[in-house]
Amino acid sequence: MNGIRRLAQELNVSIGTVSRALNGKPDVSEETRKRVLDAAAAIGYVPNQAGRSLRKGSTGVVGFMMQSGSEITGDGDVFFMSVFDGVQTVCARHQLDLVVLLCSSEEDPDAYLQRVVARGFVDGLIISATKRHDHRITYLADRNIPFIALGRSLTDVGHPWLDLDFEGMAHEGVDRLVAKGHRRIGVFAPLDDINLGHVFVDSYQEALARNGIAFDPDLVFRAYPNDRGGHEIGERIAAMPGDERPTGFLLTNEMLTVGLYRGLYDCGIKPGADCAIIGRHSTNSQYLNPKLTCFHLSLRDLGIELAEGLLATMPAYAAHYPQGVVRRVVPLDLIEGNSDQPLRV
Amino acid sequence: MNGIRRLAQELNVSIGTVSRALNGKPDVSEETRKRVLDAAAAIGYVPNQAGRSLRKGSTGVVGFMMQSGSEITGDGDVFFMSVFDGVQTVCARHQLDLVVLLCSSEEDPDAYLQRVVARGFVDGLIISATKRHDHRITYLADRNIPFIALGRSLTDVGHPWLDLDFEGMAHEGVDRLVAKGHRRIGVFAPLDDINLGHVFVDSYQEALARNGIAFDPDLVFRAYPNDRGGHEIGERIAAMPGDERPTGFLLTNEMLTVGLYRGLYDCGIKPGADCAIIGRHSTNSQYLNPKLTCFHLSLRDLGIELAEGLLATMPAYAAHYPQGVVRRVVPLDLIEGNSDQPLRV
Repeated sequence: MNGIRRLAQELNVSIGTVSRALNGKPDVSEETRKRVLDAAAAIGYVPNQAGRSLRKGSTGVVGFMMQSGSEITGDGDVFFMSVFDGVQTVCARHQLDLVVLLCSSEEDPDAYLQRVVARGFVDGLIISATKRHDHRITYLADRNIPFIALGRSLTDVGHPWLDLDFEGMAHEGVDRLVAKGHRRIGVFAPLDDINLGHVFVDSYQEALARNGIAFDPDLVFRAYPNDRGGHEIGERIAAMPGDERPTGFLLTNEMLTVGLYRGLYDCGIKPGADCAIIGRHSTNSQYLNPKLTCFHLSLRDLGIELAEGLLATMPAYAAHYPQGVVRRVVPLDLIEGNSDQPLRV
Repeated sequence: MNGIRRLAQELNVSIGTVSRALNGKPDVSEETRKRVLDAAAAIGYVPNQAGRSLRKGSTGVVGFMMQSGSEITGDGDVFFMSVFDGVQTVCARHQLDLVVLLCSSEEDPDAYLQRVVARGFVDGLIISATKRHDHRITYLADRNIPFIALGRSLTDVGHPWLDLDFEGMAHEGVDRLVAKGHRRIGVFAPLDDINLGHVFVDSYQEALARNGIAFDPDLVFRAYPNDRGGHEIGERIAAMPGDERPTGFLLTNEMLTVGLYRGLYDCGIKPGADCAIIGRHSTNSQYLNPKLTCFHLSLRDLGIELAEGLLATMPAYAAHYPQGVVRRVVPLDLIEGNSDQPLRV
């Protein structure tokens, strides 16, 4: 006798009820569900998801693919955990589980994604760290696998995406520093082909041009997006001749900021006073001294919008989310701190 | 014609070669593997892991279950990402993938784990946030599912575990503060039944007794383990009559420390001078002012040992890891900062 039949007999309920309780369907009372799950646990019955997935074509799992590895997240993460919180809020409405798919920075993201797809345990995917040209997008679209991207890409198959307003941060940041007398404005850029780096640096150049300031490639500081990368930028600034150093600095990475502060301090340059800084809000940035002037958005709301945008593309959930294909640049608010002081003359 | 047969014909290689290439076996050249994967992608062939998992009984996925939700990780995470880095290093040796299973703090971890097991996509599990009594341990042991726990528990089925030396931190921390003249020493404790809270507070009481200091339950500060929890503790300390306040404080949570500093500052109490602090090392703690005296261990090494301890219990990998059942308390080193100044008299 198979497990479901035995459970139905023991509990004196129908096979359909046992099945619906085990499958988390909404039309079973909490009390019955609990009785079924307890009885299933008592006899050691585990519904085999592999078999179920083959039959139903759905796994109840949403995957969030993020880059990992010590160069990326070795210092910790102050961005994704809050986004996950928002994604989970939406998943919980539909008894979906979120799993985080960690792709090591040492691994090819395309090969990793293909393996995830082959393993067949996710119903839909959120991908992040989108590259300028991103094969994952065409790969998923070709296979009709529901997904949404956190980050735009030149690879565009009409898929849903959300992105932070890197143009806005570059333009508002440059304008603000220029208004305070700064003309040598440095920026951070990532070492890899991640699209946000291109968008940010392009917009920075536009903003400089708009303010009549010539672009100087020496003021684009490439580094790993972590605290050591920030410290290294501080050292590189200190090593420049005094009149070539940036007097202002603009960056969008959270973990890098604390390292930059410390790197500048260690080299005798006062962040805020000797080098004005505008960055991205995080828990850390609140505790920096001087307090960071920074761009803020609700990461939890971003997670909610990502998950809803994903479910909107999945037939089983689309009725709940009539927004269609979401493609939106999310604006940020500037929070004034004391880190972007006027140029000292 | 099924996908594998068609690929073999197109590429003029054997079916076995196609299968081995698709399954990531080591005895296929990188060139052949690439040709097979490219051709598979071109015809849209996706080996179905659900079917494969039923046939082979293995999925190639290791799961790491961690607590999430804004109360736990809403401010970010400066612990697990580094541990994951170590786990991935070991997984990569065996073509295993790590997925992170986020259990929201609003959800029952036992029910969550049962669902993960039912979904059947992990070959082995690392569980964390172990409770004093933890049903997950018996649940997994009863079903012969390979696992290792990060954190001890009174629930002991002879399973492998690793834990941080909370006894050592409590004893060394108290002794160090007592040697500097402090007798009113506060500690942080979590609100829930997580085992490390019990171990830490018990050891703190032992250390006080050993130093002839009476235990005062008002000096155990319970809060959420995040930056807001730390800020709140700072406010609670400030609200105490001056002679009842702790003059020293001991804590093991990383994110809470930055909040405690700010909470004390906001209330006119200088961390380090008015209230000596000893905490846990993290990237953040390096940038606190005054610099935090803190306990340190390599989180990446902890991740490596966890993953090796897990694989040692899995028949397919045990030959590589002859250590047997790992059960070890991992010691930490004290790094001197300026945050634990002598009692001012």
